[in-house]
Amino acid sequence: MAPPLIALLTDYGHQDAYVGVLKAVIWDLCSVATILDLCHEVPPQNLLSGAYLLATAVPYLPKGTIVVAVVDPEVGSERRAIGVQTARLTLLGPDNGLFTLALKQEPPCLAVALDNPRYHLPQVSPTFHGRDLFAPVAAHLANGARLEQVGSPIPLDSLKQLPLPEPVAEAGGITCHILHIDRFGNLITNLTQVRFQHWCGNKSVPLLIRGKPVPIHRTFADVQEGEPVAYFGSGGYLEIAVRNGNAAQRFNLRQGAKIKMRLGESKKRMTTA
Amino acid sequence: MAPPLIALLTDYGHQDAYVGVLKAVIWDLCSVATILDLCHEVPPQNLLSGAYLLATAVPYLPKGTIVVAVVDPEVGSERRAIGVQTARLTLLGPDNGLFTLALKQEPPCLAVALDNPRYHLPQVSPTFHGRDLFAPVAAHLANGARLEQVGSPIPLDSLKQLPLPEPVAEAGGITCHILHIDRFGNLITNLTQVRFQHWCGNKSVPLLIRGKPVPIHRTFADVQEGEPVAYFGSGGYLEIAVRNGNAAQRFNLRQGAKIKMRLGESKKRMTTA
Amino acid sequence: MAPPLIALLTDYGHQDAYVGVLKAVIWDLCSVATILDLCHEVPPQNLLSGAYLLATAVPYLPKGTIVVAVVDPEVGSERRAIGVQTARLTLLGPDNGLFTLALKQEPPCLAVALDNPRYHLPQVSPTFHGRDLFAPVAAHLANGARLEQVGSPIPLDSLKQLPLPEPVAEAGGITCHILHIDRFGNLITNLTQVRFQHWCGNKSVPLLIRGKPVPIHRTFADVQEGEPVAYFGSGGYLEIAVRNGNAAQRFNLRQGAKIKMRLGESKKRMTTA
Repeated sequence: MAPPLIALLTDYGHQDAYVGVLKAVIWDLCSVATILDLCHEVPPQNLLSGAYLLATAVPYLPKGTIVVAVVDPEVGSERRAIGVQTARLTLLGPDNGLFTLALKQEPPCLAVALDNPRYHLPQVSPTFHGRDLFAPVAAHLANGARLEQVGSPIPLDSLKQLPLPEPVAEAGGITCHILHIDRFGNLITNLTQVRFQHWCGNKSVPLLIRGKPVPIHRTFADVQEGEPVAYFGSGGYLEIAVRNGNAAQRFNLRQGAKIKMRLGESKKRMTTA
Repeated sequence: MAPPLIALLTDYGHQDAYVGVLKAVIWDLCSVATILDLCHEVPPQNLLSGAYLLATAVPYLPKGTIVVAVVDPEVGSERRAIGVQTARLTLLGPDNGLFTLALKQEPPCLAVALDNPRYHLPQVSPTFHGRDLFAPVAAHLANGARLEQVGSPIPLDSLKQLPLPEPVAEAGGITCHILHIDRFGNLITNLTQVRFQHWCGNKSVPLLIRGKPVPIHRTFADVQEGEPVAYFGSGGYLEIAVRNGNAAQRFNLRQGAKIKMRLGESKKRMTTA
Repeated sequence: MAPPLIALLTDYGHQDAYVGVLKAVIWDLCSVATILDLCHEVPPQNLLSGAYLLATAVPYLPKGTIVVAVVDPEVGSERRAIGVQTARLTLLGPDNGLFTLALKQEPPCLAVALDNPRYHLPQVSPTFHGRDLFAPVAAHLANGARLEQVGSPIPLDSLKQLPLPEPVAEAGGITCHILHIDRFGNLITNLTQVRFQHWCGNKSVPLLIRGKPVPIHRTFADVQEGEPVAYFGSGGYLEIAVRNGNAAQRFNLRQGAKIKMRLGESKKRMTTA
C-alpha cells in the first residue's frame, strides 16, 4: 500500500526552521508518512497567492493526500482551525478563505472545526498552529484517525470565502486582474481559457498592456527573445510573459493590478457571462 | 521499525546543489534514511542564527534523530569535526559553538572527534566537509555504526562555546538583544518568558523601542493591522512583530541590536537573576 | 532493495508550486520513489549554471538514479525532449545542452527522444513539460519501464552541446571564465586543477584580479577574515572567495566574466593544452 502522503503549503519561507519543525512533528507521530512540499514561499500573509498556488496543485495530488495549508494572519485569534473533506483530498488549515479556489475544483463534502485537543500537541502556542495543531492532526489522520474524530462538524456554507475579483467583459474589452506573479515574472491573470473562449470564441484578440500590443500565442517560445507574449498557462489562466525576460519588471505591474484587453480591429461585440 | 531520520541544518542555501549533493551521499550509503531539512538558509557563516534555529527544532525532533548541522567558517582549518550524543539525539558538525543552545536543552553525554577516515568519503575536500565527512558519518550511524566507532572520545568540557550576550536587568529596565530575525521580519530576542517572569512577575511592563511604546500581548492578532506588538513566541523568547508587517524594516534593527524595556509607570524594582 | 531514486534540478524556484506539482505527479504514479532535490534555484533560463550544478552532483548520485533536469527556455517549440542513459544514470530533460558537462563525466550510451505519449500525462501543456512529460516519464522508469519503451532512439552525436568557453594559456598568463557564482558569492571558474597543473605544475602562480594579487591556497580558512583567496574547490575548479565575505560583490564580477592569471615573478613559460 502507498505510504500516506502529507502535502504542505505555507508562508513560512525557508530562512527559518518553521517548516523543518512541522516535519519533525509529523514524522515523530507518523514516521512512514511521505511529505510533499508544495510551496513555502507564499508571500507573507498573502491569502490570494496561497489560494492560487494551492489550486494549481490540487488536480495533481494523489487521491488520499492530506494537505496542510497555513497562511494564517489571524493565528491565535478566534478564527477557526478547520478540516475539509473532498472526494479525493483532506484539507487542513485556518478558516480564512485559503481553500476557496481549491474547493471550486474539489467541492467539500464534510467540514469540521479541529477542536479536539487530544490530537494537538500538549501545549498549543498562540502563534504557531502549524506546529502545534495542524501538523499533529495531519499525522493522526495519516495514522488512520477519521476527520470526525479530530473535530466537530460545521456547516459547509459557514466556511469563509476569499473575496476574489472576477474578470469583466464590457463594450470596450475585457478587464481581468493579476492573481499571482511567478518566479519568472510571469503575470498570471484570473481570466480562464474557458471564459475567454465564451466571450471571444477562437478569434485572436489584441491585448494592450500599458498601450503596447501583446500577441496571444500557444507558448512564450512563439515570440522572439525579449518580446512580450500572452498565452493560456499550465493552470488554464491567461498569463503575460516576456520570453527569457521578466514581465512583472518590464510592465511594472503587481498582484491585483487590472489588465485591459481591448478588442482593437476585430470590434467583436462581447457579452458578459 | 521507523526508518532512520537524518535532519540537516546548513548555511548552504538553495541556489546551488550543495544540499542536494549531501543527500545524494547519504542515500548512496543508506537508501532507507528519511531526510529532514531543518533549514538551509542560515545566513552565510552566521553561527548565532544557526545555533538559535537548531535550538528551536531540537525539542520536536524524534528520539534517535541524527542531526547534521554545518555552518562552518573554519572548514579545512584545525577546527575539530565532532559528534555529540545526548539522551535523545546525535549531533554532527564543526566544533565551533553551533550546538551551544541545543546542548542547553539536551545536555551532552558523549562527545567524539570524527577522526576515523573509514567513515568519510575517500577524498575529503578542504572546503566541503558536509559532503565528504558529515554526510557519510551520518549515513553510517543511520546504518547502525556507533559514535565510538566513527570517532575518538573528547572531554565534554572541551566543546567550543558560542559567546552569547545575556539579557540584563538594571535599575531602569531590562536590556536584551536580537538573536534572530525571521522571515516575517519578527525580531526574536534572547529574553525568555521564564526569565522575564522572574524579573517582572506577571505584571505588564511597557516596552519602548526607539521611543515608541510596544504592548506585550499573547499574539500579534491581539493588535490592529500595522501595529507593533511584543509577545513570547513559539520558541519561548520575547519577539517583536508588526501585525501583517515587518518589524525589522519598521524599526530598522538588525541581529545583535540591543532592545531596552523601560519599566515606565510600573516602577517595579527588578533584581538581576 | 533500495527504493527508486529520482533527482530533480530545475529553474522553477521555490516561490510557486511548480516543484511541488512535479513531485505530486511522480508520487501519484510511483508512491515508493525517493525524490532528491538537487537544486531548483538555477537562475531562470540559465543553461550554463544548470549544466554546472548538475555536473557537480553527478559523481555523487547513487547508481540507478533517474535525473529530471529542466531549464527549458524553448519549451513548447520544436526542441526535443530526451532521455540519455549512461553507465550509472538516466538523464531526462530538454535537448538544449543542459547535460553537456554531466555527459563529459558520464558518457552517454543510449539516447532517445521522449516521443511515446503513453508515458506522458493525457494533456501536455506547451509551457510545463516538467509536469506533463518529464515527471511522468521518470515515474514510469522508476516503475520499471525501459528507456527504449518511452522514446525512440536518436544518434548520440545529435545531442545538442552547450557552447562553453575554455580556459586559454597565453604568453602572459591564463585566461579563464566565471562558470557560476554560488550562494556565498564565491566565483567558480572553468579552470580545473588538472589543467592548471598541466600548465603551471605545482608552482604557486600569482593571480591578479582587478589588479589585486590573490593568493592560491588550500581553503579560504588559510587567509584572514575579509581577505580574498583562490583555491581549487570541491568540484575541482579554481574558485575565488573572500573569507567570511562575498567575492562577487567585492570584485563586482558576474557569470561569464574573464579572469586573468598573470604569471608575475615566476615567469614560467606555459604551453597551451
